[in-house]
Amino acid sequence: MTSHLWFHEVGQHHFGIQIRVRRTLCHVQSPYQEIMLLETEGMGRMMILDGCVMLTERDEFLYHEMLAHPAMCSHPNPKRVLVIGGGDGGTVRELLRYPEIESIDLVELDEQVVRVSQEFLPEISAGLTDPRVTMHFRDGVVFLEERTNTYDIIFIDSTDPVGPAAGLIAQEFFANCKRALRGQGIVVMQSESPFVHAKEIKQIHHNLRPVFPNPQLYLSPMLSYPSGWWSFTMVSEKFDARRDFVEERCHRVSKQLEYYNPAIHQSAFTLPNFVQRMLNEPQDA
Amino acid sequence: MTSHLWFHEVGQHHFGIQIRVRRTLCHVQSPYQEIMLLETEGMGRMMILDGCVMLTERDEFLYHEMLAHPAMCSHPNPKRVLVIGGGDGGTVRELLRYPEIESIDLVELDEQVVRVSQEFLPEISAGLTDPRVTMHFRDGVVFLEERTNTYDIIFIDSTDPVGPAAGLIAQEFFANCKRALRGQGIVVMQSESPFVHAKEIKQIHHNLRPVFPNPQLYLSPMLSYPSGWWSFTMVSEKFDARRDFVEERCHRVSKQLEYYNPAIHQSAFTLPNFVQRMLNEPQDA
Repeated sequence: MTSHLWFHEVGQHHFGIQIRVRRTLCHVQSPYQEIMLLETEGMGRMMILDGCVMLTERDEFLYHEMLAHPAMCSHPNPKRVLVIGGGDGGTVRELLRYPEIESIDLVELDEQVVRVSQEFLPEISAGLTDPRVTMHFRDGVVFLEERTNTYDIIFIDSTDPVGPAAGLIAQEFFANCKRALRGQGIVVMQSESPFVHAKEIKQIHHNLRPVFPNPQLYLSPMLSYPSGWWSFTMVSEKFDARRDFVEERCHRVSKQLEYYNPAIHQSAFTLPNFVQRMLNEPQDA
Repeated sequence: MTSHLWFHEVGQHHFGIQIRVRRTLCHVQSPYQEIMLLETEGMGRMMILDGCVMLTERDEFLYHEMLAHPAMCSHPNPKRVLVIGGGDGGTVRELLRYPEIESIDLVELDEQVVRVSQEFLPEISAGLTDPRVTMHFRDGVVFLEERTNTYDIIFIDSTDPVGPAAGLIAQEFFANCKRALRGQGIVVMQSESPFVHAKEIKQIHHNLRPVFPNPQLYLSPMLSYPSGWWSFTMVSEKFDARRDFVEERCHRVSKQLEYYNPAIHQSAFTLPNFVQRMLNEPQDA
């Protein structure tokens, strides 16, 4: 017998997704947000924060691989890294594939996201207890104000840039990221859907450019996020994702992966015409 | 006031989409299928055949550009072409962008699809009355049995390969395609979603290989189709999409387009690891 419980998420353009739910494993209100952990009929377990799908077990590899690896394979020597958000542990799991990494700071505002993940998503969150990982249950914006010259790469694994995560796309935040980098590192962030979040992408790039003049957008499919297609943005004063690509490292790590490989590294930065035009439009267009 | 009418399409994995509908413009049963033409709140007008979204005005450019242009830019001299299915006219609209094309045969089983498109989707279907286009309201499988040495490129713009369209992925059909090509042309087809139709893609490639040994899969986002990500397959005895790429033609046509451009031509054929593995699996795995 199949369940009659459905999860619905409707986004821009009155367009949404629906997923059949077998049972509710956890449904709590943390100090910051509503957290749901659902077992679906066909997409594995699913985490939902304030009504937005954060991950399903079936497709989370897409998002986590594509947030973690392109930057890791564009830096010559990444040893110390920071993840802001990402309390489910998926990004950390990907980073731990690299013996090059000596330490990972994870800054997650909401400790309950980590606890729920550790209870119900053990395969995704397992890396959070790795000795190379230090967890900080704090506001990423405040945490970063206190850091200087520390990280080779900063990964911003945030929820949508509204509410608790709005500060993570401010120009001051990006300036603090730059100061927290050791030498000339890389900052990479999820940057919403090119189909339904043009305004948000333009805002992010507008706020980035005074700090990092040439943000590089790249793209990946992502089933369970609005529109099924997602963007990421990588910035650096020194490194270019294509020119400074570390092919040997990419080749090595991609053997363990489902999506990312050397050819994908290059092609992900290829932008369709409408995305190129969007990025060239004035911010308020 | 927003409408309370919603269209739902649930596919594999108990995963689906939902789109808010402002009004129903047409809802008929043709001899072949149920045809709905809906005006949505945020995706423009939408055509639905037997419960499956065929197109929305907001995202049809993705599918039609990516079905038409990669093959058109991989053939040195495409003059005579055939479209099987595609009664909405979107593929023909893309093909008419090429002055190189002298004639287009469109073979659509269901005349009512064309009539409904001409009434409610005039911008998509306008090209169907172009003097270079000849419409045939027939079964594409039978039509092709009668053709020999005729076309430079055959575009298979079909619905899902079940019911009326099942014959369009049979090995005999592909052999007839080969015979209908003039010299060594190209056949290109929509080939379902790499996320949710692995079985169908493997079936298509299994049936293709005895006729065309090296099918080339390529990928594109597609919001309103299941999983938001779609595949196409191009085959030819002679032409390779990357090696025989006609960059000048691509550069020229892409100025009129929203998605496709020379860099996209190359990157669309880049396959993620799990898709490569899927194509290497036995057909019944």
